[in-house]
Amino acid sequence: MDEERTEAWWARRAWALLSAVRERAPLVQCITNLVSMDIAANALTAAGASPAMLHSLREIPDFTPRCDAVYINVGTLSEDWLPSMRAAASAGRPWVLDPVAAAASGFRMEACLQLLSRSAPPSSGATRPRSSPSPRAQITPPSSSHDSGEALQAAKALARSSGAVVAVSGAVDFITDGEQVISASNGVAMMQKITATGCAVTALIAAFVGADPSDALAAAACALAIFGLAGEIGMESVKGPASLRMHLIDALYGLDE
Amino acid sequence: MDEERTEAWWARRAWALLSAVRERAPLVQCITNLVSMDIAANALTAAGASPAMLHSLREIPDFTPRCDAVYINVGTLSEDWLPSMRAAASAGRPWVLDPVAAAASGFRMEACLQLLSRSAPPSSGATRPRSSPSPRAQITPPSSSHDSGEALQAAKALARSSGAVVAVSGAVDFITDGEQVISASNGVAMMQKITATGCAVTALIAAFVGADPSDALAAAACALAIFGLAGEIGMESVKGPASLRMHLIDALYGLDE
Amino acid sequence: MDEERTEAWWARRAWALLSAVRERAPLVQCITNLVSMDIAANALTAAGASPAMLHSLREIPDFTPRCDAVYINVGTLSEDWLPSMRAAASAGRPWVLDPVAAAASGFRMEACLQLLSRSAPPSSGATRPRSSPSPRAQITPPSSSHDSGEALQAAKALARSSGAVVAVSGAVDFITDGEQVISASNGVAMMQKITATGCAVTALIAAFVGADPSDALAAAACALAIFGLAGEIGMESVKGPASLRMHLIDALYGLDE
Repeated sequence: MDEERTEAWWARRAWALLSAVRERAPLVQCITNLVSMDIAANALTAAGASPAMLHSLREIPDFTPRCDAVYINVGTLSEDWLPSMRAAASAGRPWVLDPVAAAASGFRMEACLQLLSRSAPPSSGATRPRSSPSPRAQITPPSSSHDSGEALQAAKALARSSGAVVAVSGAVDFITDGEQVISASNGVAMMQKITATGCAVTALIAAFVGADPSDALAAAACALAIFGLAGEIGMESVKGPASLRMHLIDALYGLDE
Repeated sequence: MDEERTEAWWARRAWALLSAVRERAPLVQCITNLVSMDIAANALTAAGASPAMLHSLREIPDFTPRCDAVYINVGTLSEDWLPSMRAAASAGRPWVLDPVAAAASGFRMEACLQLLSRSAPPSSGATRPRSSPSPRAQITPPSSSHDSGEALQAAKALARSSGAVVAVSGAVDFITDGEQVISASNGVAMMQKITATGCAVTALIAAFVGADPSDALAAAACALAIFGLAGEIGMESVKGPASLRMHLIDALYGLDE
Repeated sequence: MDEERTEAWWARRAWALLSAVRERAPLVQCITNLVSMDIAANALTAAGASPAMLHSLREIPDFTPRCDAVYINVGTLSEDWLPSMRAAASAGRPWVLDPVAAAASGFRMEACLQLLSRSAPPSSGATRPRSSPSPRAQITPPSSSHDSGEALQAAKALARSSGAVVAVSGAVDFITDGEQVISASNGVAMMQKITATGCAVTALIAAFVGADPSDALAAAACALAIFGLAGEIGMESVKGPASLRMHLIDALYGLDE
């Protein structure tokens, strides 16, 4: 167990990364599924990042090199979007893959594996092999006690072979670079009842990696923790842009002279 | 009038179907318009179903046969999506067509008629020929008193020729299999001020049919009633995933150390 | 300074235009980006307009001539959507271009310039050359005091060369037809933290122009003001379709026998 990385260390680290996102407003190109665009863009904007939902192959050469990170999500994969995903993943920027429902079809699984094989250098990629995450609000220091289970072994193997950080959600969530394994405590169960929270948190990982590409493992863990914490706070009160969005349209409807 | 199908019978039936959706979490493939994806997916998830927004022709052979139901919506129809719609409608699963604005163009009308001609066997399809539904919270037992009007006669004819259950919204809402006609009492008018509630309720019909394909007529009527009831309850209080989605993004925005 | 166009004149004008939108329910075809479809459609519907998100080239000839206005937004531009944008812009209807992030790539900039060169006659077009508007709740009468700055001069030049009304947001927002310049007071800063409010307000400009095409300059200024006002009111209370959308899905989730 790494002595320096106590829970207090992680809390400071998560806050520092969120602050970095707010200060640097990392530009995150999102080539993502059609369902999650709204929530992913709003989550990124709310967190302080600058989302850009460009997906045309024609724009990759001009635009992607300017981005701080790239987020690719195969949720509504189609043949005509795949070349853009490949090009953006190969543009030399830190990038994050959300292999939503990778096992849905042979076409999709192959596309994910091809994308992973274009992964940027170690510590600049991160993947989420499962599509129903349970974001955790508290990060547990690395420990060997979680180093068991088929999923974890598969994730570590994938991390080693691809050079990417791998985040896996499930009964036990963990993030691994093939050597270290970080887990985080449970968040709010109801978040799984919101479509595309998994996509949104993975987009947030891209923003965190974009703001500080030096440690993708920590960035992924902290983004998961921040998102889970936001979910917990979100259960309590209303103040911010999402309720404003609701209020704005209500007011348009109810406007009176 | 069918003696067994009193209002109390319908209330029990609607509850039983919603419970079946929650227990079985039917997998509903949605090839739907780009506007309604968010609300349709969230409505399905909230109701207990498992939405999957795959639309690539490459994935239909692997994925569609595993689904409990297919939902097809032509709201933002394009030539490149039509082959997937045709393939999914022909995959042998119960499927629901939402012919949004079918009269908008000759291209669209022809696409809808082609899709209908591939309808699955009787009692496994359902259509909604109008795009602005007024979901009803209370189902009225079948009655001959509603058996009048051009729209109803056209719907019955369509149901007979296509073998599908047809749901029509308007001044008088009704659902028919060509023989029986069910109507339901009025819901909340403001729901028509929300974009894509019609798409969402039709997606819900697919989930209900997927959970219990034995009686598409009852499934369609009960989905409409449950959705209308949810609208009425929704007018009163806030508790659930949609307000959580709002709260979550607000919290991301307002997070403080 | 135009004596007739006092602040009170603008307030009456904005109300008259909103009333016209509510009475005439202008049909607005939106060929817009994939992120903003939900909020743009809901904002248009809430304001009383009838949005139609058709984007297939096959449907333009049948459908676009029936529309009161066309709204084109290049936020998620792709090669396969561009022909539809060109066709819709050339269909002889008043149309509004939102050149989101026009400088993101050469492809995008060229597409915007091509679209502008197809602009309808003077006073029927309006553009928003910046992608991060600060909607203003109060319109200031035309004045020469704002006639300075590079952006304004560029906007006036663009308005003169294209024959379109040009709306620019930024430190100072203004709307110009190349001669007159209108500015409006500041709205709610948090609106910039909601993805696609810029897209939504530009869609609203299309609705206002569609309801009264006789004065695109006034329509654009009033739509910006109404949207800003809605944002301010939205900060205060909850009543309308957007909170209903939230409540509805919550209720689906929480429904109990």
